[in-house]
Amino acid sequence: MTAFRFELHAVDPTTGARVGTWHTPHGPVETPAFMPVGTVATVKGLTPDQLRQTGAQMILGNTYHLALRPGAEVLAELGGLHRFMNWDGPILTDSGGFQIFSLAKLTKITDDRVAFRSHIDGSLLELTPERAVEIQEQLGADCIMCLDECPPHDASPERMQAAVDRTTKWAARCRESQKRGDQALFGIVQGGIHREFRERSLAGLLPLDFPGYAIGGLSVGEDPAQMYETLAFTVPGLPTYRPRYLMGVGRPIDLLEGVLRGIDLFDCVMPTRNGRNATAFTSRGVVKMRNLQYRTDPSPLDPECRCPVCRQFSRAYLRHLFMAEEMLGPILLSWHNLAYYQQLMSDLRQAIRAGKSQEFRTVQLARWTQ
Amino acid sequence: MTAFRFELHAVDPTTGARVGTWHTPHGPVETPAFMPVGTVATVKGLTPDQLRQTGAQMILGNTYHLALRPGAEVLAELGGLHRFMNWDGPILTDSGGFQIFSLAKLTKITDDRVAFRSHIDGSLLELTPERAVEIQEQLGADCIMCLDECPPHDASPERMQAAVDRTTKWAARCRESQKRGDQALFGIVQGGIHREFRERSLAGLLPLDFPGYAIGGLSVGEDPAQMYETLAFTVPGLPTYRPRYLMGVGRPIDLLEGVLRGIDLFDCVMPTRNGRNATAFTSRGVVKMRNLQYRTDPSPLDPECRCPVCRQFSRAYLRHLFMAEEMLGPILLSWHNLAYYQQLMSDLRQAIRAGKSQEFRTVQLARWTQ
Repeated sequence: MTAFRFELHAVDPTTGARVGTWHTPHGPVETPAFMPVGTVATVKGLTPDQLRQTGAQMILGNTYHLALRPGAEVLAELGGLHRFMNWDGPILTDSGGFQIFSLAKLTKITDDRVAFRSHIDGSLLELTPERAVEIQEQLGADCIMCLDECPPHDASPERMQAAVDRTTKWAARCRESQKRGDQALFGIVQGGIHREFRERSLAGLLPLDFPGYAIGGLSVGEDPAQMYETLAFTVPGLPTYRPRYLMGVGRPIDLLEGVLRGIDLFDCVMPTRNGRNATAFTSRGVVKMRNLQYRTDPSPLDPECRCPVCRQFSRAYLRHLFMAEEMLGPILLSWHNLAYYQQLMSDLRQAIRAGKSQEFRTVQLARWTQ
Repeated sequence: MTAFRFELHAVDPTTGARVGTWHTPHGPVETPAFMPVGTVATVKGLTPDQLRQTGAQMILGNTYHLALRPGAEVLAELGGLHRFMNWDGPILTDSGGFQIFSLAKLTKITDDRVAFRSHIDGSLLELTPERAVEIQEQLGADCIMCLDECPPHDASPERMQAAVDRTTKWAARCRESQKRGDQALFGIVQGGIHREFRERSLAGLLPLDFPGYAIGGLSVGEDPAQMYETLAFTVPGLPTYRPRYLMGVGRPIDLLEGVLRGIDLFDCVMPTRNGRNATAFTSRGVVKMRNLQYRTDPSPLDPECRCPVCRQFSRAYLRHLFMAEEMLGPILLSWHNLAYYQQLMSDLRQAIRAGKSQEFRTVQLARWTQ
């Protein structure tokens, strides 16, 4: 596991925000890092070269989707996910659990396994902790996730505690069943927004000594303030010298607030999904690209951005592409949004090194909302 | 008009195929050339950088579509089509006539003008030869087209002759109304597949001494053999030292047959449209990318192609992208198809220079159909 050395370069004493380098078999990741989501072995609309140009170092693939299409055996036969999608940087895969609970039709969950129906063709499938690890070993990502149970954010205390305990038991089984030595398996902390359940989850997982920990069960419907508060009482319980990954989060402000609470890794579909829907993230806040005010606007989308989109095209052109329903609109806005997210993380790393993460937050919040 | 010097480097005496360089205000075009179609200021799915990487030197924009969205005045205000879409190479625009006859709901055509309804919102619009030139001057392409009438391929002889005569009269009015001196205005030869009408059209247009000539009214439903025969008796009537443009053509085989009959310029939506529909053009013929046989095929789409798609991705991955309905599938196949078309034109230029266009044709036909 030396391939996964996590170097901490600086911790901002005023906030707990950290800067580090996480070394993986496919190269280093400067943290805090944002991982673009490549659901079925493609970050929607971008080539690997364009993705690399955004500054992305590590990306995420969804095991549930990949296991359905093209299938884990096909991916294994073709040399794994890296070669299949021509991405030679680090990759993280989730366990498939989140999609089973959110996308598939759940048929039955027991302590042993979860049974569900494919959202594509309705076929009946099952997943155990062991099988989740086995599939992820076939996909071959650098970082893989334990199978967890992610209940709704407003689940009853009984349901929440049961999910925490099941997640802990499954984590032990995942740890036990791991065969490959070149993948970092993360445990996932569950427990919703309840301090006692988060502490219970931590207490169950920490003895298993995972090389990194994910925080799941957030950004699933609770208020942002509740999410930030949950991070504030959960993150300090995690080991300092292991990477911390906040799953499925979020908006630029959520990344900022997460980093200032000690998170190292993020992933989210928002930059690409919102980009496809004509919504841009910029240094001055959100821009709705279809707005009539941009009809003859010759200025770049974000005058402070140096991405290829902002260097080459006007707002008028971007608006036109969306009005004419041209593919290039979603492509270019996804590209810019991903570049913007990477620039934000880079700026954050610099601010933390300078011991100014709190000041950075203040300035950034003012600019987004002006 | 010296900006539009057309240099002929070689003519293959066995076929009449020619190699040249057409100099335009936005740079040279090596001919014979294929122009990708950028209907509404975007070649669907590709960035200008990717387009340039395919080897494309000159592209086409559709005046009808651009006049509706974003509008000629908007384009003029934003500095013209080149700047709007960030393409600094040569551009050709059609007159809008073809789309009026094929796409819009035609309401009335007289010798003076054509009235039609927009296919987008049904609004009533009119186009005169003078307005067609004026709009194209607002768009600012390097090469612009006279307004012509393009009747169905099976129109009656009376209708065909009337269209030829109207096209001639409109060509004179277009020539007369041209104000900008930095755009090459082409006359369009009509007349369907009838030798007498093509000769009548030529006789009407040649005295107007256009800097180049287009052949319209082909690839509109007639058999390929009829199109090739029409080229064989029409092209020799065109001036040797002016570029010849076959509008809206075609498949790789049509480009080959057109070049061997003395055509210099082509445009067609097929590489991008077919690419979006999972159909690839390769050195060994057409590949249907969704075919089950490619499910675990690790080889490149076209082993003889050196385009970025064939160098980076497997058939299995391309098939997967289409099966999962991912945008990257249409993007990558459009990219490859355009690169393939450009490679074909490059190979043709080399064969013509070597005096071997006939041999090239024989070899190529055998490989496409093996």
